[in-house]
Amino acid sequence: MTAPTLRPGGRSARVQESIHTAVRELLEEQDRASVTVPQIAARAGVTPSTIYRRWGDLAALLADVAMARLQPETESTNTGSLPGDLRAWAEQYLDEMNSEPGRGMLRDVQASLKPAYCATIIGGQLQAILNRYPDQPNPGVDRLINLIAAPIVFRILFAEAPLEVEELHRLIDIALNQ
Amino acid sequence: MTAPTLRPGGRSARVQESIHTAVRELLEEQDRASVTVPQIAARAGVTPSTIYRRWGDLAALLADVAMARLQPETESTNTGSLPGDLRAWAEQYLDEMNSEPGRGMLRDVQASLKPAYCATIIGGQLQAILNRYPDQPNPGVDRLINLIAAPIVFRILFAEAPLEVEELHRLIDIALNQ
Repeated sequence: MTAPTLRPGGRSARVQESIHTAVRELLEEQDRASVTVPQIAARAGVTPSTIYRRWGDLAALLADVAMARLQPETESTNTGSLPGDLRAWAEQYLDEMNSEPGRGMLRDVQASLKPAYCATIIGGQLQAILNRYPDQPNPGVDRLINLIAAPIVFRILFAEAPLEVEELHRLIDIALNQ
Repeated sequence: MTAPTLRPGGRSARVQESIHTAVRELLEEQDRASVTVPQIAARAGVTPSTIYRRWGDLAALLADVAMARLQPETESTNTGSLPGDLRAWAEQYLDEMNSEPGRGMLRDVQASLKPAYCATIIGGQLQAILNRYPDQPNPGVDRLINLIAAPIVFRILFAEAPLEVEELHRLIDIALNQ
């Protein structure tokens, strides 16, 4: 029998993961404003000081969790066509950002030290889609961010109603036909 | 000699204006995080309780001032052409939002009770421009918001660098050529 390999990095990563999981669970169960560090610590099985030592305060921890959530767990849908893939990605992005956790995430990311990471992550996802169709002309990642991601987020933050799916499809067509 | 007309609404409006002015001045002079209600009250010549009674707290007052600042003081430049007017409007909007007071304003508006007022105000400004050219085909205010205002704000909040003016001009061309 081999003893399990214990690495400090591994333990540290597991502690972080249990704290992130506790935050995600609590955010689903209760109002964001009522979540506290002692509550998270109890759920994660650590002491509050572990959290304060690593993140400093609750806002920083929430921002860190929000950042981690920006990273999608799975590759975006491959529909077999560039417009189809962009529609699938954009519809999912609209759904996620327009949800209560998504809106909370947009707030937390802005409060974090590196909100610009947001465009980097989105850019990576869109580039991965473009890479599936190397022979097709495309407008580039920056244009796609400007025409697809920006209106989705802007309308969630600053308008009465979210972007409608019909307009989202039109914007994708506009982006691809330039 | 006629006694000056005293209306409660007039006095109330003057008090509000002096408080707004005090906030605007203080935000130009010092770091936003260091501005306090007693400081604003002293500058405006009112008691702190006047501010607390009317706005509740500092965040609500800052949000209210931010909202008021969204309303432009002057009509946007009339260049004689629709693309020219949109460029003038968009370049000014980019400049203002990308400034330190502009970024603070975007934060304050989100913290306010009616951030959606933001798109309404922008829509009104863009509609006023479209109204100057009733005989020209145009994409409508919503499309202009999606293609011009949204990328400006999204990149300020979530990207490494603001939108470049060249890309802004391209987006205006795209919006007008649909």
